[in-house]
Amino acid sequence: MRADATRNRLAVVRAAREVFAEQGLEAPLEEIARRADVGIATLYRRFPSRESLIAAALLEKIREYAAAARRALAASDPWDGFACLVRAICELQARDRGLGELLSMTLPASDEVERLRAEAQVDVAELVSRAQAAGRLRPDFVAEDLLLMLVANAAVARITRSDAPDAWQRFVGLILDAFQYTGGDSLPAAPSAAQMTRVRARLAADRGCGAVPLTGNASGYVETDLRIGSPG
Amino acid sequence: MRADATRNRLAVVRAAREVFAEQGLEAPLEEIARRADVGIATLYRRFPSRESLIAAALLEKIREYAAAARRALAASDPWDGFACLVRAICELQARDRGLGELLSMTLPASDEVERLRAEAQVDVAELVSRAQAAGRLRPDFVAEDLLLMLVANAAVARITRSDAPDAWQRFVGLILDAFQYTGGDSLPAAPSAAQMTRVRARLAADRGCGAVPLTGNASGYVETDLRIGSPG
Repeated sequence: MRADATRNRLAVVRAAREVFAEQGLEAPLEEIARRADVGIATLYRRFPSRESLIAAALLEKIREYAAAARRALAASDPWDGFACLVRAICELQARDRGLGELLSMTLPASDEVERLRAEAQVDVAELVSRAQAAGRLRPDFVAEDLLLMLVANAAVARITRSDAPDAWQRFVGLILDAFQYTGGDSLPAAPSAAQMTRVRARLAADRGCGAVPLTGNASGYVETDLRIGSPG
Repeated sequence: MRADATRNRLAVVRAAREVFAEQGLEAPLEEIARRADVGIATLYRRFPSRESLIAAALLEKIREYAAAARRALAASDPWDGFACLVRAICELQARDRGLGELLSMTLPASDEVERLRAEAQVDVAELVSRAQAAGRLRPDFVAEDLLLMLVANAAVARITRSDAPDAWQRFVGLILDAFQYTGGDSLPAAPSAAQMTRVRARLAADRGCGAVPLTGNASGYVETDLRIGSPG
């Protein structure tokens, strides 16, 4: 009985990983149950909410993201470290549609996802401040720029996936050039942290993820993306 | 009778303009009929395909796009002209979700749309070659980069519209910095023109626009976007 439950849970998580990667986080749960060869009632018993299934399915990917941030810290050149992080995240996004979406939205997540995210956030903040201190990353770069880039890269990767699967690499090359400091003009103002929190909460809500608050601050909700530094 | 038909046609086009701007080009035609206060059969009689309705509804926007290209040519500084064009297109995209989509897809379009597009294409090619000749636009810039940027900007504008309505301006500022030549590193290869033609044909097909060919070249299909120079 217990073994059966474990087997079912694993099958659902494996199927969810595949389906979210292919179709994104709003994929029908019925499709996941079908591929896992379990009834929809069994799926709901193991995962009472879409969020809990997303957290379980994407845990490994979030680990890869946290590991990429840690690896980037090891680069001796501060700009190389930052660029290496950006490329790694964008590649993870390009390979997995679900992760692409997850990185740009808020989600009430599991403790483990939250721990990994917090860990990565510290590393990303360090990479940013090192690259800025070295004069290589533009001084007006803020966390929200990385988030805009993630939203954009997710769209480029999704839309070109079948017909021009390497196009995202060109796009990331352009974006890295934009982030690099060359003494150029100042930019229009960045969106505020509070605005981008609402953007991400709305993305989660649009994908059927729980009662995400769409007004005020999203306190109580874990931010699974790349917010750097002070809370919004 | 004739006056009635004209009135109905106008009402449908006006409603389509609103609904496409708000919801994108895959918006339900029933919603358009409802807002125009006509039956769905009347809508289909005037516009037998979704493409024909899109072409009629967005004709004015395509005119604005062609006019923006013409205006940009008048700038005395070649880089200012190019930057002015990019900003104008991205603003049109940000203000109208339907146009945002149209600019990055192929569509069997009307003669008038085709004429405007061809006119704008000549102007855009001229803006690009002037800015490159002046050493301000990166020499490895190709038409496909502009298309990737349009895909990305459409996503940024759509996702931030409600909560951070100016975020696309920051994004466009970053992208313009990426396009500007500063003697930096070379980029990963751009997707080919043929690849991007397939990407755009698929975008159109995903929005329920006709029998768009998804393999081979898209000959017979008008390209409503910004292809510059030689055919793919």
